[in-house]
Amino acid sequence: MTNVKRVYTFGNKQAEGNAKMKNLLGGKGANLAEMNIIGVPVPPGFTITTDVCTEYNTQGREKVVDLLTEEVEKAMAFVEQTMNAKFGSKGEAFPLLMSVRSGARVSMPGMMDTVLNLGLNDDTVKLIAEKSGNEKFAYDSYRRFIQMYGGVVMGVEAEDGKHDPFEVILDEVKDAKGYASDAELTAEDLKAIVEEFKAVVRKHAGVDFPTNPWEQLWGAVCAVFDSWNTERAILYRRMEQIPGEWGTAVNVQAMVYGNMGENSATGVCFSRDASTGENIFNGEYLINAQGEDVVAGVRTPQEITLEGSKRWAARGGVSEEVRRATFPSLEEAMPDVYAELNAVQQKLEKHYSDMQDMEFTVQDGKLWMLQTRNGKRTGAAMVRMAIEMLEEGMIDEKTALLRQDPNKLDELLHPVFSTEGIENAKLLSKGLPASPGAATGMVVFSAGKAEKMVIDDPSAKVILVRRETSPEDLKGMYAAQGILTERGGMTSHAAVVARGMGKCCISSAAGIAVSHDKLVINGVAYKEGEWISLDGSTGKVYEGQVPTMTASLDGDFGKLMELADKHTRMHVRTNADTPHDAKAAREFGAQGIGLCRTEHMFFEGERIFAIRKMILASNEAGRREALETLLPMQRGDFEGILEAMDGFGTTIRLLDPPLHEFTPNDEASQIETAKKLGISIDIIKAKVDSLHEINPMLGHRGCRLGNTYPEITEMQARAIIEAACNLKAKGLNPKPEIMVPLVGTVAELKMQEEIIRNVAAQVFAEKGIEVDYLVGTMIEIPRAALTADEIAHHAEFFSFGTNDLTQMTFGYSRDDAAKFLPIYIEKGLLKHDPFQILDQTGVGQLVEMAVQKGKATRPDIKLGICGEHGGEPSSVEFCHRAGLAYVSCSPFRVPIARLAAAQANVR
Amino acid sequence: MTNVKRVYTFGNKQAEGNAKMKNLLGGKGANLAEMNIIGVPVPPGFTITTDVCTEYNTQGREKVVDLLTEEVEKAMAFVEQTMNAKFGSKGEAFPLLMSVRSGARVSMPGMMDTVLNLGLNDDTVKLIAEKSGNEKFAYDSYRRFIQMYGGVVMGVEAEDGKHDPFEVILDEVKDAKGYASDAELTAEDLKAIVEEFKAVVRKHAGVDFPTNPWEQLWGAVCAVFDSWNTERAILYRRMEQIPGEWGTAVNVQAMVYGNMGENSATGVCFSRDASTGENIFNGEYLINAQGEDVVAGVRTPQEITLEGSKRWAARGGVSEEVRRATFPSLEEAMPDVYAELNAVQQKLEKHYSDMQDMEFTVQDGKLWMLQTRNGKRTGAAMVRMAIEMLEEGMIDEKTALLRQDPNKLDELLHPVFSTEGIENAKLLSKGLPASPGAATGMVVFSAGKAEKMVIDDPSAKVILVRRETSPEDLKGMYAAQGILTERGGMTSHAAVVARGMGKCCISSAAGIAVSHDKLVINGVAYKEGEWISLDGSTGKVYEGQVPTMTASLDGDFGKLMELADKHTRMHVRTNADTPHDAKAAREFGAQGIGLCRTEHMFFEGERIFAIRKMILASNEAGRREALETLLPMQRGDFEGILEAMDGFGTTIRLLDPPLHEFTPNDEASQIETAKKLGISIDIIKAKVDSLHEINPMLGHRGCRLGNTYPEITEMQARAIIEAACNLKAKGLNPKPEIMVPLVGTVAELKMQEEIIRNVAAQVFAEKGIEVDYLVGTMIEIPRAALTADEIAHHAEFFSFGTNDLTQMTFGYSRDDAAKFLPIYIEKGLLKHDPFQILDQTGVGQLVEMAVQKGKATRPDIKLGICGEHGGEPSSVEFCHRAGLAYVSCSPFRVPIARLAAAQANVR
Repeated sequence: MTNVKRVYTFGNKQAEGNAKMKNLLGGKGANLAEMNIIGVPVPPGFTITTDVCTEYNTQGREKVVDLLTEEVEKAMAFVEQTMNAKFGSKGEAFPLLMSVRSGARVSMPGMMDTVLNLGLNDDTVKLIAEKSGNEKFAYDSYRRFIQMYGGVVMGVEAEDGKHDPFEVILDEVKDAKGYASDAELTAEDLKAIVEEFKAVVRKHAGVDFPTNPWEQLWGAVCAVFDSWNTERAILYRRMEQIPGEWGTAVNVQAMVYGNMGENSATGVCFSRDASTGENIFNGEYLINAQGEDVVAGVRTPQEITLEGSKRWAARGGVSEEVRRATFPSLEEAMPDVYAELNAVQQKLEKHYSDMQDMEFTVQDGKLWMLQTRNGKRTGAAMVRMAIEMLEEGMIDEKTALLRQDPNKLDELLHPVFSTEGIENAKLLSKGLPASPGAATGMVVFSAGKAEKMVIDDPSAKVILVRRETSPEDLKGMYAAQGILTERGGMTSHAAVVARGMGKCCISSAAGIAVSHDKLVINGVAYKEGEWISLDGSTGKVYEGQVPTMTASLDGDFGKLMELADKHTRMHVRTNADTPHDAKAAREFGAQGIGLCRTEHMFFEGERIFAIRKMILASNEAGRREALETLLPMQRGDFEGILEAMDGFGTTIRLLDPPLHEFTPNDEASQIETAKKLGISIDIIKAKVDSLHEINPMLGHRGCRLGNTYPEITEMQARAIIEAACNLKAKGLNPKPEIMVPLVGTVAELKMQEEIIRNVAAQVFAEKGIEVDYLVGTMIEIPRAALTADEIAHHAEFFSFGTNDLTQMTFGYSRDDAAKFLPIYIEKGLLKHDPFQILDQTGVGQLVEMAVQKGKATRPDIKLGICGEHGGEPSSVEFCHRAGLAYVSCSPFRVPIARLAAAQANVR
Repeated sequence: MTNVKRVYTFGNKQAEGNAKMKNLLGGKGANLAEMNIIGVPVPPGFTITTDVCTEYNTQGREKVVDLLTEEVEKAMAFVEQTMNAKFGSKGEAFPLLMSVRSGARVSMPGMMDTVLNLGLNDDTVKLIAEKSGNEKFAYDSYRRFIQMYGGVVMGVEAEDGKHDPFEVILDEVKDAKGYASDAELTAEDLKAIVEEFKAVVRKHAGVDFPTNPWEQLWGAVCAVFDSWNTERAILYRRMEQIPGEWGTAVNVQAMVYGNMGENSATGVCFSRDASTGENIFNGEYLINAQGEDVVAGVRTPQEITLEGSKRWAARGGVSEEVRRATFPSLEEAMPDVYAELNAVQQKLEKHYSDMQDMEFTVQDGKLWMLQTRNGKRTGAAMVRMAIEMLEEGMIDEKTALLRQDPNKLDELLHPVFSTEGIENAKLLSKGLPASPGAATGMVVFSAGKAEKMVIDDPSAKVILVRRETSPEDLKGMYAAQGILTERGGMTSHAAVVARGMGKCCISSAAGIAVSHDKLVINGVAYKEGEWISLDGSTGKVYEGQVPTMTASLDGDFGKLMELADKHTRMHVRTNADTPHDAKAAREFGAQGIGLCRTEHMFFEGERIFAIRKMILASNEAGRREALETLLPMQRGDFEGILEAMDGFGTTIRLLDPPLHEFTPNDEASQIETAKKLGISIDIIKAKVDSLHEINPMLGHRGCRLGNTYPEITEMQARAIIEAACNLKAKGLNPKPEIMVPLVGTVAELKMQEEIIRNVAAQVFAEKGIEVDYLVGTMIEIPRAALTADEIAHHAEFFSFGTNDLTQMTFGYSRDDAAKFLPIYIEKGLLKHDPFQILDQTGVGQLVEMAVQKGKATRPDIKLGICGEHGGEPSSVEFCHRAGLAYVSCSPFRVPIARLAAAQANVR
């Protein structure tokens, strides 16, 4: 055991570890070593290995300190030498202060935060005050150190119902002195506070604050190890399935200061433009400042490069003279430092093959890199950088793909508000970002009115505002620019339909109340015709007209999509109910339809009366008569959709919703229906009453309808097969896939399959023409997944309806979950809304089970997903792993799904 | 292959097969052989083996006939010799006619029915007419044969939309002659009909009806083999998981006749009394008659035994003289035959060790046994016979247990209507037998009224009649003798609660309409105070008062229960919400409570206002204040229940239903609540509105309440733990098990567990006393079963809530499924209502998965079931196999569950 190396030093452009040693040194430690190796100046320090964490847990603190002492002392000597400073200096050298941080293999919340300025005590603080010439800085650092160390290492915390004791003291001093902020505290104030802080520690921890720097160091190191086994860390590891044996490393690193005079500075910089993606070095800095000062906004930061500085001056109307005198670039102010920094940023970008976001400090003319990481970027920048880096030969195709965050593509696919527009707009409310994009229009409160306004004036822009939407609102939603609802979640009717249409939608907006003639937001009423604007990507509602910019898919986007398709295994289909949507989706690259909801076709114009007539019929003959009227309409719909998807598989789902969704539920439409159909209103009311369900989600719908009223399935099957035959006669290649919804037992599917195949055979005989078609089922009932082996005997394909499958697997009603889901997510009971991100543990288990069982029975079974999850990247990746052949999503998410599918395959 | 034996003969008290050869000879063939072996006279015949069925399917008809011919001819010669008759006689002997039947290992619907009288043609029919002296009998047999053979073997059937062509001819002849029934047809009529039937066959089958008996025989044998692969048979096999390779045997047996003169007879008899279970031989017979005549009721059948005959005469007031002259017993009329029959029945009962139900025919003085089978019996007879046979040493304990049909015990546990009462009562309607027992009482339409009437006059008998019941009706249901509802299924609120109370209940009665002041049944109105009677075991509703008899559990029942407990592995607990129910259940042998629903306690008296106050509170402090009022009430409830179940585990479920179940939903109670709580009615209405859910089953309930309002869980946990501590202080041994409902993720349970354990620790500290308690969860959400391994980390027990688990696994709402479940069962899409009989394939798969995963994490995890299925025998057996420790059911089903649990263990 004595030969085990427990401490790895880094600094002075050399290191004992490297980037590949993440298991032993943790992610942070390995990267600190790596930066040194490639010659980047980093404050020196050392990493105590993750193995020591395990030793700590099994052998205890004393033993581990014993095992470490010699190596740590040696490492500290190396740091002292590199920094020309002394840890616990008595005056013989500048006092060396250290930071201590945890660092596991993967970043892990719940672990110990940073302790800075370790090494300060009543002696060293004086030396620092003296040598830096800045007493206030020295004592402020000291009080921060006591506060941080006292809290994190010594467990000083607020008692139940009280405030943090350190903050209480700070507040008392500020109150007594009449200060508005911490910045007003003087060196003398701070000296007094330090004494009070020490007293707090004594009182709460029962011991004196340690004055010996080495004692401080061991305390902090052991606190890191202890933090590995806090409840929060354990829970996080369980959730993320991180083994407890991994342990954490401890990183101990020298402190450096950018506020030690005019020859010091601090700044942040980026190797490319994070906003546009342009390949240009940029960033900001301040002379004689600390890191916080750059972002705090008290002083105006200066540009790093001369070019940047000139651009900045031009934008702000600052003359070249003033610029050079007051806001010189680092390139001008510290040319040598700039040259080194520029070399470093090039080196780092090349080394990490990605745009770097870096922090640096110049202490007394010497450049220190404090951090580098892959920079955050906008969606547009993300695409441009990856394509350019690919063309520069910096990264390969797979890397370019994996470098994308698919969700960010959304920014490129929808209209957005102009930046100035947003800045000047008045924010009224914030709701759920139910469907992305920006829209501005006049408020209307009924679907009929929305439709009428757009018919009267096709250039009219309206925003449909409703408590919640229902299928009857469909045409009004089409007519509107965007939809705002008082109620409903991310998967409410409004949200789902709007996403399908690519319309922006905000649901459950805070503080709004919708009635039949006004929208009240926080007490202010908006009437019909008044303008509002919606940002469906953020959920923000603005007053008045905010100018929008339509999305333009530039060349880089197209190149990215080509790349994705080259590297994918899964296809991407779309959920589309109309020829219009089908065509739009093909433009976004959809290869087929995964879900065509036939019932959406039932609401248009006169059709609703035909379906109501069917529902109101007292017997089969009456129903058949009404269905006869619907047949040619449905056939026409299917011809349009199959033609738009010519040559691609088109999954058409048979009638799914409960019949009461089609009945007239208010008196006015009951009267209208009675008149139209020549039926007494009492009969209509009695029917509406008898169709009422307590839990419609679990009621008489899906194939339960088709099996109790086989004539409905017959009509729909006939409409589909006739449409396909007609198109084939015209030389097209229709590929209908008839999907039976809500199957829970094989017997249900079998009965439906028989009806469909009989009808198809009849149609083929009548027309003298045959088309290929498939019969399959949704897997959306848990029992269907559990018995997928039986069901596959009668299903040529499975399409996972993960919306309903999630509802039933969790026992959550999408329509009602808004009452507790937000609280669940806030309390950490759920990591995500399972309707947005597929629950791989539970729902995913059923999907995997069904895939396995389905394939066991029918090895060539076609597998896909048509739930909302089909457009969500992590869920798409799951589908890839589960072995599905395609995902299907709303047209506007098709590019996202294509990218996610490619990423999944590359991974 | 030539040495393979394909045909096994039986007859003349010898046989080539025996009862153990069921795989080869099928069930029927093996038993026919067995009866011969034990010396019972059975018409001779032969069995073609199941292996031949497989040969038929692989090698075809011609080959198989070829393989069989020699053996079948030899077997037929044996039959001819035994019967002294000739198959296809040309006059040299009495014509031998045969029956042909299928016979697989297990009885299987969808297989070929019997063909009788095979061997008849234009020649043999004349011989039979001549030799029997009964021309009409001969030709009637002939036309029946053509009809049966034509239909079953030659495929003559009704064309679409038309009637059976044979029946059409019969009707035409009867119409032309003005006959009312078939019996009036003369021999001449029948001769003409035979010719017309032959013409029908020619027309429909395209060939002449076969006249050669051997051709007839091969046709029938091959038709049996063909029937193995009909669609219906295949579907049945798939459902029952019977391998297609098993095949069916063919039984060919000589016909015998009881209608060949005064020396012939036919009858049925039982080795014990099927009604009472008394060990006495009994039965009925007719001289010169066919089997149908005994049951047809045209002639009065006579008793078999002299004792029976005398009892019969005494009951009917028939003098001994008349009796002896007109209705002599078989014992008197044919003493020798009787003696043989008596010996046979004793032999058969002894051989099969069970009460036998036998059919016999005496042909010309010779006794032939046509069938013996274990006799059907009443519940009382079932228990008495098994206990007496056990005491007689005829069967062992395990057999006595397995001989019981647990569902029949129900007859012994509830009041029943007297037989005469039922005979004289007017049947009004039939509904679902939602909760067994008989009740008579005055109609009332509100729970309040029911309660008041019984308070005013404790001997008052009322029947509560409602559209449907809700938790608010609880006290009225208690007060009533029985409950009748217009709506709801077997697991509606009314049904579940009534079964729990042991009250009779009928739901979804046909043709009834309930309003606030009358019950209309098929147009007739019944007002408050009018009497009706309910038979909850049959679902029948009667007019007026029908006398009831209370159940008396006699000695045999007690002995049976002792036996069951001796042989069981699982315990039986009860679902009980009150000390009263808990005590009742202990009398029925319950060992603990598997489900105590705390919310049922919230409806009593003033409590509902306390809970409403909590719901209406605008913040946590307000809720806590209201909960303070509930605490002592709940504690008192728990003390009562834990005391009644002293020493037994008592599982108490935390608040489960959505809060809107407690809010006042009609204006009157809203006003009452507003007054009572001093809150504006608008606030109440707004709250009711905001709590409304579209799918309450999948809404904000169960632990979702306890996790969003932790103070509710705190109060309930405190009430339970304080109650337990108080009892322990009194020297009792309370064993509370706190159950968290509706858990879907481990995080939900963990949060609830923490609350409970913290409260318990506080209470222990406050009281200075500690009790053992468990924390566990319902497994009722599919996701809980799928992630049971995770959940078991925080659950000391699992209780399977198979009601909700069934709802979510199938996606069926119990409240709404009545719209399609009956149709599904009628169409064969479901074999059973899955809310009554656990779906082992789907829901059971989740149970098994959860058991396995739960045990993997926590090997000693306590496992039970508390859904309605816990009292259903086949489900109890499943629970045993799945490894559960107990089942829990309503008090009145405890004996049934005890028996079923014992049977499961014995099996």
